[in-house]
Amino acid sequence: MAARPHVVILGAGFGGLRCAEALADVAVDVTVVDRNNFSTFQPLLYQVATAGLNAADVAYPVRSSLRRHPRVDFRWAEVVGVDWRTRTLALVDQSSAPEHGGGAAVERASLAFDHLVVAAGGAVNFFGVPGAAEHARPLYSLAEAVGVRNHVLREFEAAAAAGGRPASGGLTVVVVGGGPTGVEVAGAMAELFAKVFPADYPSLDVARARVVLVEAAPHLLGAFGAKSRRHARDTLVAKGVEVRIDEQVASIDGGGVTFVSGERIEARTVVWAAGVQGAPVSRALGLDTGKGGRIVVDAHLRVPGHDRVWAIGDIAQIDARAAGAPGDVLPGLAQVAMQGGRYVGTAIGAEAAGRAAPGPFRYRDKGIMATIGRRAAVVELSNGVRLWGTPAWLAWLGLHLLFLSGIRNRASVLLNWAWNYVVWNPASRLIFEPRDLGRSASGVAAGGQG
Amino acid sequence: MAARPHVVILGAGFGGLRCAEALADVAVDVTVVDRNNFSTFQPLLYQVATAGLNAADVAYPVRSSLRRHPRVDFRWAEVVGVDWRTRTLALVDQSSAPEHGGGAAVERASLAFDHLVVAAGGAVNFFGVPGAAEHARPLYSLAEAVGVRNHVLREFEAAAAAGGRPASGGLTVVVVGGGPTGVEVAGAMAELFAKVFPADYPSLDVARARVVLVEAAPHLLGAFGAKSRRHARDTLVAKGVEVRIDEQVASIDGGGVTFVSGERIEARTVVWAAGVQGAPVSRALGLDTGKGGRIVVDAHLRVPGHDRVWAIGDIAQIDARAAGAPGDVLPGLAQVAMQGGRYVGTAIGAEAAGRAAPGPFRYRDKGIMATIGRRAAVVELSNGVRLWGTPAWLAWLGLHLLFLSGIRNRASVLLNWAWNYVVWNPASRLIFEPRDLGRSASGVAAGGQG
Repeated sequence: MAARPHVVILGAGFGGLRCAEALADVAVDVTVVDRNNFSTFQPLLYQVATAGLNAADVAYPVRSSLRRHPRVDFRWAEVVGVDWRTRTLALVDQSSAPEHGGGAAVERASLAFDHLVVAAGGAVNFFGVPGAAEHARPLYSLAEAVGVRNHVLREFEAAAAAGGRPASGGLTVVVVGGGPTGVEVAGAMAELFAKVFPADYPSLDVARARVVLVEAAPHLLGAFGAKSRRHARDTLVAKGVEVRIDEQVASIDGGGVTFVSGERIEARTVVWAAGVQGAPVSRALGLDTGKGGRIVVDAHLRVPGHDRVWAIGDIAQIDARAAGAPGDVLPGLAQVAMQGGRYVGTAIGAEAAGRAAPGPFRYRDKGIMATIGRRAAVVELSNGVRLWGTPAWLAWLGLHLLFLSGIRNRASVLLNWAWNYVVWNPASRLIFEPRDLGRSASGVAAGGQG
Repeated sequence: MAARPHVVILGAGFGGLRCAEALADVAVDVTVVDRNNFSTFQPLLYQVATAGLNAADVAYPVRSSLRRHPRVDFRWAEVVGVDWRTRTLALVDQSSAPEHGGGAAVERASLAFDHLVVAAGGAVNFFGVPGAAEHARPLYSLAEAVGVRNHVLREFEAAAAAGGRPASGGLTVVVVGGGPTGVEVAGAMAELFAKVFPADYPSLDVARARVVLVEAAPHLLGAFGAKSRRHARDTLVAKGVEVRIDEQVASIDGGGVTFVSGERIEARTVVWAAGVQGAPVSRALGLDTGKGGRIVVDAHLRVPGHDRVWAIGDIAQIDARAAGAPGDVLPGLAQVAMQGGRYVGTAIGAEAAGRAAPGPFRYRDKGIMATIGRRAAVVELSNGVRLWGTPAWLAWLGLHLLFLSGIRNRASVLLNWAWNYVVWNPASRLIFEPRDLGRSASGVAAGGQG
């Protein structure tokens, strides 16, 4: 590391990987740090939660992404602190953590940096709603998506085991938040209940299962135009989703959701798609955060008051006007993260080469889209093109497949989808839980039955 | 259940599912019970352990297998006891167990049967070797295979995090047992180390990684002919596997393996492929077990002393001569389980229809095969055909793909394999652990870094 500057990138998501790629041919050493050894394709997590895809379909090993770039290394670790004076991060290597959960890791390691790019993404924001942190299930990480799927399957298995008599709310899923994630998970869940579960659970009256989508604002998909909002709502209702707008959640408990209006819905599964904030690593770094725990950056995506420190993607609060985009703050989209990653990689490369720094970060908005289910989506491109229904769904499908990092994942996802599309019989309904790994770890037999 | 007899099948493996299918059009109600909600394609578990396939590629939901048979239901439960007088099983429904491990389930349920088919498979047998149960990793269940993969990846990550200086034995894998499973996992692990890890871990001297295959007998693949044994050994050695025959394991600890000869190999990963016994459910049922904890059955696969109770597959001790096959006891092969399942299904169907019971069970031996790695396998068909090398590997590949239950799984596995074959870059190196699910359950943010 003597002569070449060392760039540390925190987070192997859309932004972090783009930044690493932009630096691959620059005369710097790069270390990407992530607490998972894989990147997650977050736009498809809702498919994992609704048993349409397997966990591995939307995850890709970081080292596989980086293997073409021998100067870019990976560190499987969690950042727990920083010494700004010596420019050294304090890490806990995940490989030193106890193998099967239960108990924190003890050893701390350190990692020196010349340049630091914080690209650690976001985390759920429960906005302090009582009971939400304990009983609602977010959809921001792969583990959370698998958790939703396992839980829904468990409730249906429990109802089947009870001779077809579900517990109160056992077959009800409430989705809180009517943005793209909420709309996507509600639509896909309703399809799972309508098309897949009736044959899976012949002893259950699956028609009694409910999906309720709750939104505090007067309409779904607030970022979209009126026609898209209407199309989304009509499509969801046609799929059997109960859409509740103008309804705010007062509290959540193990048995259901209570609205501010006083109404209560019995539900043993509550999915929280209502809010995102910056990942908590900003606290470990002691950086100034603004709205929603996001790190404040200047027009060059630098962290004010710190030398050669940047923040990009969901963890950064980027002023939209400074970036030439409408609105207040840039939204938490893959496009924002990727363009930010590329920009910061270029900026560091220029500095390393002694060239002039690029001008302020400009965000090129390509548009927004959300899928509502099988052959239904809404697309609003920034060039004015608007699509609804099947054309929008095909556009959404093509774009997401194109996006998926790693060609193997792309092909596997396409295959899975194509097959599901034909037979409505996803093979992704595995309940594979920590208990299973725990059993194996203890050396106790875990084969077949018994 | 009033008029129609109720058949309960314990275990959703090769034998149990075949038996259920044979009963699908018979005037009986069938309940398949398994403690997983999926069937495992055990012949490919070694691929999961060596990061060639994802967990979901070799698992298929039981309800997906059964959905064409509305009279066959599934119960996700573990059997903990039986009342032979009332013909009632005591179960613990897995859906009632705590969601994230730690703590046993409390509620017991019961399930009455008229006919009982015990098809619960096997479990690892450590033969009382000191330290094996604590430190060696079996390869009999999906969770165990994922456990091996996670552990090996963790050791390499730990070595990378330590600046390329691995702990003693950190990059050494010892495989105990030179049967087909041991040969397969050793060969695939050596290929992973030779072809995949060098590019994944540029900071490690991966050439120092070792795979040691230990066999107590004087040769590998004892069930095969001399030429196959030689081919297996030569191929493994060419792949870099250290083959140690005539060497018995005295003890295993966290740091390595000690042989009876006194020699010691430092190794932080020990895979146990040396022995299988009947699944422990035979104890919960209080049935007589013979060699290796397998349930003794008569020539009709019935359990002596019990009315309308059968045992099939790995959990049954089937006299080979009575079944018209060479040897002592039928081996633990998928073929034995499937033929047994079909036979018992037919026998129960005959009884339900008031027809005469079929004659004694006859086993049609089709032959044995084992893969040693990329384009290397040994095949010995019972019609005398012998194949080695690439032809054997192609035969092995085709047969296993044909076998894989569930067409989606088959296509996905084929795709994965084909891709790996071309680029040596499996996307299956995800470390996805209980800790991840635990975090999600507690409502703590688990997104990206931090």
